[in-house]
Amino acid sequence: MADAYAGKFLKATFPTQHVLLLEFNRPPVNAFHEEFWLEMGAIFRKVDRDGDIRVVVLASALPKLFTAGIDITALGKFDPKEEPVARGFRTRVYIQEFQAAISAIEECRVPVIGSSHGVAYGLAIDILSACDIRLAAANSIFSIKEVDVGLAADIGTLARFPKIIGNQSLTRELAFSTRPFKADEAHQMGFVSRVVPGSREEVVKAAVELATVIASKSPVAVVGTKHLLLHSRDNPVRDNLSYTATWNQLALQTPDLPIAAGSALTKKTPQFRSLPKL
Amino acid sequence: MADAYAGKFLKATFPTQHVLLLEFNRPPVNAFHEEFWLEMGAIFRKVDRDGDIRVVVLASALPKLFTAGIDITALGKFDPKEEPVARGFRTRVYIQEFQAAISAIEECRVPVIGSSHGVAYGLAIDILSACDIRLAAANSIFSIKEVDVGLAADIGTLARFPKIIGNQSLTRELAFSTRPFKADEAHQMGFVSRVVPGSREEVVKAAVELATVIASKSPVAVVGTKHLLLHSRDNPVRDNLSYTATWNQLALQTPDLPIAAGSALTKKTPQFRSLPKL
Amino acid sequence: MADAYAGKFLKATFPTQHVLLLEFNRPPVNAFHEEFWLEMGAIFRKVDRDGDIRVVVLASALPKLFTAGIDITALGKFDPKEEPVARGFRTRVYIQEFQAAISAIEECRVPVIGSSHGVAYGLAIDILSACDIRLAAANSIFSIKEVDVGLAADIGTLARFPKIIGNQSLTRELAFSTRPFKADEAHQMGFVSRVVPGSREEVVKAAVELATVIASKSPVAVVGTKHLLLHSRDNPVRDNLSYTATWNQLALQTPDLPIAAGSALTKKTPQFRSLPKL
Amino acid sequence: MADAYAGKFLKATFPTQHVLLLEFNRPPVNAFHEEFWLEMGAIFRKVDRDGDIRVVVLASALPKLFTAGIDITALGKFDPKEEPVARGFRTRVYIQEFQAAISAIEECRVPVIGSSHGVAYGLAIDILSACDIRLAAANSIFSIKEVDVGLAADIGTLARFPKIIGNQSLTRELAFSTRPFKADEAHQMGFVSRVVPGSREEVVKAAVELATVIASKSPVAVVGTKHLLLHSRDNPVRDNLSYTATWNQLALQTPDLPIAAGSALTKKTPQFRSLPKL
Amino acid sequence: MADAYAGKFLKATFPTQHVLLLEFNRPPVNAFHEEFWLEMGAIFRKVDRDGDIRVVVLASALPKLFTAGIDITALGKFDPKEEPVARGFRTRVYIQEFQAAISAIEECRVPVIGSSHGVAYGLAIDILSACDIRLAAANSIFSIKEVDVGLAADIGTLARFPKIIGNQSLTRELAFSTRPFKADEAHQMGFVSRVVPGSREEVVKAAVELATVIASKSPVAVVGTKHLLLHSRDNPVRDNLSYTATWNQLALQTPDLPIAAGSALTKKTPQFRSLPKL
Amino acid sequence: MADAYAGKFLKATFPTQHVLLLEFNRPPVNAFHEEFWLEMGAIFRKVDRDGDIRVVVLASALPKLFTAGIDITALGKFDPKEEPVARGFRTRVYIQEFQAAISAIEECRVPVIGSSHGVAYGLAIDILSACDIRLAAANSIFSIKEVDVGLAADIGTLARFPKIIGNQSLTRELAFSTRPFKADEAHQMGFVSRVVPGSREEVVKAAVELATVIASKSPVAVVGTKHLLLHSRDNPVRDNLSYTATWNQLALQTPDLPIAAGSALTKKTPQFRSLPKL
Repeated sequence: MADAYAGKFLKATFPTQHVLLLEFNRPPVNAFHEEFWLEMGAIFRKVDRDGDIRVVVLASALPKLFTAGIDITALGKFDPKEEPVARGFRTRVYIQEFQAAISAIEECRVPVIGSSHGVAYGLAIDILSACDIRLAAANSIFSIKEVDVGLAADIGTLARFPKIIGNQSLTRELAFSTRPFKADEAHQMGFVSRVVPGSREEVVKAAVELATVIASKSPVAVVGTKHLLLHSRDNPVRDNLSYTATWNQLALQTPDLPIAAGSALTKKTPQFRSLPKL
Repeated sequence: MADAYAGKFLKATFPTQHVLLLEFNRPPVNAFHEEFWLEMGAIFRKVDRDGDIRVVVLASALPKLFTAGIDITALGKFDPKEEPVARGFRTRVYIQEFQAAISAIEECRVPVIGSSHGVAYGLAIDILSACDIRLAAANSIFSIKEVDVGLAADIGTLARFPKIIGNQSLTRELAFSTRPFKADEAHQMGFVSRVVPGSREEVVKAAVELATVIASKSPVAVVGTKHLLLHSRDNPVRDNLSYTATWNQLALQTPDLPIAAGSALTKKTPQFRSLPKL
Repeated sequence: MADAYAGKFLKATFPTQHVLLLEFNRPPVNAFHEEFWLEMGAIFRKVDRDGDIRVVVLASALPKLFTAGIDITALGKFDPKEEPVARGFRTRVYIQEFQAAISAIEECRVPVIGSSHGVAYGLAIDILSACDIRLAAANSIFSIKEVDVGLAADIGTLARFPKIIGNQSLTRELAFSTRPFKADEAHQMGFVSRVVPGSREEVVKAAVELATVIASKSPVAVVGTKHLLLHSRDNPVRDNLSYTATWNQLALQTPDLPIAAGSALTKKTPQFRSLPKL
Repeated sequence: MADAYAGKFLKATFPTQHVLLLEFNRPPVNAFHEEFWLEMGAIFRKVDRDGDIRVVVLASALPKLFTAGIDITALGKFDPKEEPVARGFRTRVYIQEFQAAISAIEECRVPVIGSSHGVAYGLAIDILSACDIRLAAANSIFSIKEVDVGLAADIGTLARFPKIIGNQSLTRELAFSTRPFKADEAHQMGFVSRVVPGSREEVVKAAVELATVIASKSPVAVVGTKHLLLHSRDNPVRDNLSYTATWNQLALQTPDLPIAAGSALTKKTPQFRSLPKL
Repeated sequence: MADAYAGKFLKATFPTQHVLLLEFNRPPVNAFHEEFWLEMGAIFRKVDRDGDIRVVVLASALPKLFTAGIDITALGKFDPKEEPVARGFRTRVYIQEFQAAISAIEECRVPVIGSSHGVAYGLAIDILSACDIRLAAANSIFSIKEVDVGLAADIGTLARFPKIIGNQSLTRELAFSTRPFKADEAHQMGFVSRVVPGSREEVVKAAVELATVIASKSPVAVVGTKHLLLHSRDNPVRDNLSYTATWNQLALQTPDLPIAAGSALTKKTPQFRSLPKL
Repeated sequence: MADAYAGKFLKATFPTQHVLLLEFNRPPVNAFHEEFWLEMGAIFRKVDRDGDIRVVVLASALPKLFTAGIDITALGKFDPKEEPVARGFRTRVYIQEFQAAISAIEECRVPVIGSSHGVAYGLAIDILSACDIRLAAANSIFSIKEVDVGLAADIGTLARFPKIIGNQSLTRELAFSTRPFKADEAHQMGFVSRVVPGSREEVVKAAVELATVIASKSPVAVVGTKHLLLHSRDNPVRDNLSYTATWNQLALQTPDLPIAAGSALTKKTPQFRSLPKL
């Protein structure tokens, strides 16, 4: 069944029940070209509709690194001799489709935990920023690298990163200078929730453990929490409160509520129903 | 006079001039049921109109904890056999009135300092998030607990918590997993301004001291600062600057300005007029 | 050429290529009166149109401090006996012009690095908050001081500071109480990116070094990154992604892209064209 | 039962099933003072929670006019010798409570039809603008009168009127000049849906007939339509579509849907359940 | 080539150069079921990427009517016995996909002219509202019909219709009461730009003529105008001005500008290049 | 004194007290080049700060027409051989300065009445749309002409026109097709408030009469009304109500209020104080 979520560049396994582990697998450095990111977007859209998957862990299958970022050949898509407006219009659509592939992580209804180790440069930050939670192996090293290839990061880093870490001074320093930063600094600024000693193996293990905890909770509650936190990020408090009331006028009718209440009394682990397939 | 602000579940005292100390008092665990939160909301609306109270400290009178959260019986209000739309419409109003009781803390014109110790779970986070400043006793332990009872937190945590700590990775981890976190972690993520060694007594003392400092400042300046910071949280910089100019076209006419200037010269403590009763 | 950017109260030099160092120079304490802030605003508007300047470092020329804040005489501009509405309307315009002078830092297309040492009180925070990156000498001491003179900070601190540090609890405590905070706390909360051991000389040196790194990058990429991060701060993720695609439909046509790609292959330092004069 | 919705200045009757007719009744000119508007606000909040009332018609019981507007004595509430900031703070709360009384019309979940005849000046426009639909007797005469008493309309006209008529040129002319306009012009500009020949009696009859039609429809559908149209007025299209999907994920589960479908087949008038009491 | 844009329920022809005529063709009443609307959405997404099509006319191939609205069977998709939350979640996705099919009209970069005749009920209004311009045959009859089937219109009417006609009084009357309205009233309220005497044949002819005029203009200018008007509808004036400057920093580099200028001098019809394929 | 407001291309007179008549005067067709629009912007910024001018009438001094629009030579400013990004960045600033000159009309605190006759094409619509009220001589003819020169209108028409007329169908038809429309159609769609029989002389006379009426009202009330209506156009109802309360907490302290009340009793024309100079 995991095969249904695998691709040419992504491995898929179920390390624990309801937890899907997706791993980038394009040696030697997981460089992203168009085919790769479109595949990733499509898989997350598929996960979104599945009901059994409750949490995704997104990691790299390569022992040395998460991803070195975009495949430089993907930047040279457009003919520099073309008339600027036509070239620009086609560039815009290309960017939007690229953005959509990354935003599919955010739009996937279940939580996605990004698990990084080694080099995580450029597009790595765009991808990790679209995850809900980030864990980093101690050997992780990050860089908002886009300025070094002559462009402003347009696939999500500038949109999401400052809202994740809540630190404009550091965001701008890192984005202007492309200075690499390590796991500890990433933790201190709030980019990652936790630093896991070790490398790939250890951080994936920790991410799967966290995912397993989340997967044991009421799926209706978890999915609603992700949905409402995304609304909260992009809206004033008052509007979010009002939206939340509208969301919960239905969600509070879930059978998960009495199940959770019952298990609290009996001290047994509650067994929740899976989400509906969409 | 403090009695005017007391209730069935809330004690009210004036530890120092212009500082109101409100303490939850529903043994054994300050569990919140509808009567409790409506009472709290009403008291804050009353404080808002008073002119003499300049700062509120919100704490628990129970030696062991802040609050264990919602009284589980308050969740079972609606008949699961009722037709879903009717049930949903009534749920929505119930949520909105609940939200309004908590938002009364935020809408109260003077600063509110939340002072926590021991367990502060579930609704505790919603309440503390509506305060302006939070101090924590070293023995505090927090949890965004709602997912464990099968629901997405709808009374303010999802709306306010991420904007307080500015850390989306941690917000989501805590909200999805309900992992408890201690005072030090709360401080590091920015949920509380300071950790006070000890428990209830020590943190309340520290909160009252901070409140006393703030109460010595120009009330017009403090009230305006709270008002404008709330606007700032929910609006773009440009709109906030414009709104601020409109606010201060009146507020700068306060006699507090020459009083403050005068006391700067004479090195005496300035004595400011109280706010108008509303 | 640096003289073109100097003023009566601001020194201007070019410590390294493309890096402009502006230094406040109104002894004894760099107190800001109207003439001073209007001059500063005008200089930043001039920098914005220059093409050769790629980064600005904003510091103080006085060895002891950054700035003690507003010149108290600038507060007494209006006649308290004037009819309140007329007085208010004129106050509003006065505030808006003051805000515009500070916002000129933010609106300047190239990055501005604030470099502080010693006392940085009141208006210092408004000014530093309008910078992109902040470095602090270890002897820096900050205070959101406005409440002490009887007013709510209206020149940018309340609008920008909480969005820089992403910590509402601390923002409000500092703004209500005017409590001074030192370099280390400023770093921990995210107000400054780094603490530099020493005082004026050391921090200016560090700021110029960082500026020099940034000045070596593609100016089109850096300018776009600043522009898009400001948009990101004030807009939802989805709108920012869409705006970014529209911005980059042109910006990706820059010759800096092939230059950067070429230098990546040849391992030579890329030489980018300056921005167009405006 | 109608008495439950009557007040000292408002008559209440049920001309047809589920239709509440509220009539202003403060001779000689329905001048509004604080007691009057607070009473009106309270009644609408009560209607909002009732389940049996499906439409409200808001009219005047006086044969000659709708209302001449605010009772001039209500403007002189504040002491001109009071210190401006204190006076201003109290004025602000007074305005907000006044606004809340008028907004109660808009916030009432069922549609409100404003039925005007004769003079409808000043506050009359604020009140009518908060209604969902407006009908006018041919002898109606309107004026945005506030400028003539020295103030900018602050109880809703400036917020709602331009969004009702979608004509900025006329809105501003009428608001700046206070020029009275008659029923036909009001119809042409879109302020009223229809002009009814005659005066009070005729227009109330027409309003009740329209109300009766609406009251025969699915209350869940009508209430949802009002709710979503208010959201639509204040939000971008994309956000409204998303909110609508969230609203209807519950609302489409109403038994009114199969009832409506069934009656379409049987050609019988559908009988819908009333809304839940809140 | 027109066949590339035809479908099972939509006819496609090119009545004049660069003008695509799409006609609903599902006798007897163009009732929309899921297959139909998904097909329509897919075709508009295809048109969006074509470069040669400059305007679309959307009409009905049936001589008697535009469309009677949704196929009632499409409403009964969900099992009423299913648990409400699961049912709701699946309903929400169903609505969103339905909305996306209609929004594809709006998101198609070239103008779409809706051409209606005869009955245009329910979904007809959602579809026409997503068009840029509407023409109506004199025999057209419209109704916002959704309330009669027990639901609030959720596919676009409530989001777009009030912003098209700029008349809240009429919008709400029509939406609450489902009252049918004829071509002349539709014209007077601004829903349609023009009433064409006659029926299907005449209005399609008029729409194609208007389309042909638009197709003769600079495609870059027309596409930009549509894009910026959609932005204008959903954003404040200041933000739209700023966005427009960013859009036109590229778009003004089009060769269409000198072509248009040249043809103005030579009085010859300008020949513009087609848009780039996407 | 009127000379202070005149320019090389604008005549200035005071036809009645407090009313400034500004007339475009660049024969033969009032074609706008950069010098012309910058001059106009500067004059409106000057008017904004004057206290005696209460209303502006903006018209053309040429007997035949309002303006034929932009001087075509102003479009050819940029070198088509320049590198696209540099060219684009300079274009953007050029547009923004142009926009600012037109927005100065809107930002001028007193009402501006646009008075058109004869041809009013292209930029004429941008300018008239920035006015508060528009009157048209019967011989007026309008066109949103920009598409005919190969560009999307970027100086204000697309931002303001649809919000003035509240009719998206017509806005788009006119903007895509450049179809000219006459005074009567302009009136019917709400672009102008009134059609005045005749040409230049008659419409200017009517505009001055209307201006004179407005100039007799309380300047504080009129200026506040303009300010709040602009806020209302760009913000949700709830936010506008809140902003209005903040504005009026000061503005209601104007001496104009008792003056207006007094004159209502004595039936004498009230004499209001002028606004403060800024």
